[in-house]
Amino acid sequence: MPNPTAAMLVIGDEILSGRTRDANMHYLAGQLTEVGIDLKEVRVVSDDRDAIIAAVRALSGGYDHVFTSGGIGPTHDDITADCIAAAFKAHIDIRDDARALLQAHYDRSGLDLNDARLRMARIPDGATLIDNPVSTAPGFSLENVHVMAGVPSVFKAMVASVLPTLTGGAPLLSRTLRLMMGEGDIAAPLGVFAAEFPDLSVGSYPFQRDGSYGCNIVVRGSDATLLERAMTTLEARFPG
Amino acid sequence: MPNPTAAMLVIGDEILSGRTRDANMHYLAGQLTEVGIDLKEVRVVSDDRDAIIAAVRALSGGYDHVFTSGGIGPTHDDITADCIAAAFKAHIDIRDDARALLQAHYDRSGLDLNDARLRMARIPDGATLIDNPVSTAPGFSLENVHVMAGVPSVFKAMVASVLPTLTGGAPLLSRTLRLMMGEGDIAAPLGVFAAEFPDLSVGSYPFQRDGSYGCNIVVRGSDATLLERAMTTLEARFPG
Repeated sequence: MPNPTAAMLVIGDEILSGRTRDANMHYLAGQLTEVGIDLKEVRVVSDDRDAIIAAVRALSGGYDHVFTSGGIGPTHDDITADCIAAAFKAHIDIRDDARALLQAHYDRSGLDLNDARLRMARIPDGATLIDNPVSTAPGFSLENVHVMAGVPSVFKAMVASVLPTLTGGAPLLSRTLRLMMGEGDIAAPLGVFAAEFPDLSVGSYPFQRDGSYGCNIVVRGSDATLLERAMTTLEARFPG
Repeated sequence: MPNPTAAMLVIGDEILSGRTRDANMHYLAGQLTEVGIDLKEVRVVSDDRDAIIAAVRALSGGYDHVFTSGGIGPTHDDITADCIAAAFKAHIDIRDDARALLQAHYDRSGLDLNDARLRMARIPDGATLIDNPVSTAPGFSLENVHVMAGVPSVFKAMVASVLPTLTGGAPLLSRTLRLMMGEGDIAAPLGVFAAEFPDLSVGSYPFQRDGSYGCNIVVRGSDATLLERAMTTLEARFPG
């Protein structure tokens, strides 16, 4: 059975303006690879209602899972929760379970649960809360979309909360052969090799070190025996 | 007149598997902001012909410019040039101008311009070459799509080659006010402020330092006078 597929949607003007370097994509990609969910596409859109709704609908329809990051805080530019509700035509309002979490949290910290903070309790009907052990305000899963914070420490904590609830597949295994040869010199035999192992993915990633060209040949697949056989073949063809 | 819009398409299994952390998106975002081209969307897709063609068509139709990175080397997984040609139904083959560049380069290095390296001279009819001062093999622009390498040093050099040929708009200016207050405490007055300056974009980016909450309020726009007036207003409302 093929692995489940996934897409990620990163929401935030600060990424597109170059102010902030996104860190969540790389983290999620690694985590999904470990649990055998194939990340097939990532989109980054701005804090724009129409853009978010269109992307959520397209990705939700195209993949088994969608993971979003960003736009679930208390300020006016945090519109993700309402956009997800709109994408699925779900009703959204302050929900009692989320409000109770926030109330307890702010009671402990001696801060006021004001209207702005209460926005973080806006959760669509039918959604399941995602635990946030870092700063309490929860994420949520609605249909096949998992809505998480953009702050990297909170994003990571939410990924750790939601991934164990999903059914993964065979973890993608990866082996690398490092060659101190230019890609142009190995491309032909590498193409032959890739064609001989159609169930594996074979990538070539060039680098330059101290003026010499090299490349990392990365072979990926979920069948450990097949991968081992492929690497033995590859090493025999590119000895040394 | 509004600024031209742009999208970026990052092509490569290695990003989606978490093996490689993309660096080109952040770089391009910063460069486009400086020349007044608004980056509206980024997509990352795998080395898959149908996925690349569909993304190129969608983004080319939706934005003034599309910038791609990745998949233009000599190996079997480098399929970007052929996919771009297919997306625009353009003919593609080894082109004399690109072959001449490569021939001169490999003659200088004493290397053989073999069939694999010649693949890097596959350029669609009607495309304009993009200069590559790092490793010679050119990128190209076809219609409104600018096709560049994934290796960060080469990507940067190609961006430097292509951006001066495009008409930008007013550079996006950005000012930041750093507040040692939680987002929940400033969200209400910040929302009022944002509504008073509809021609500016107002973002709030929270952080935690030494156990205290703070946030950076980032105000962006292309009108320097308006931005100055907004910052004076903002500083008066959040003194200290």
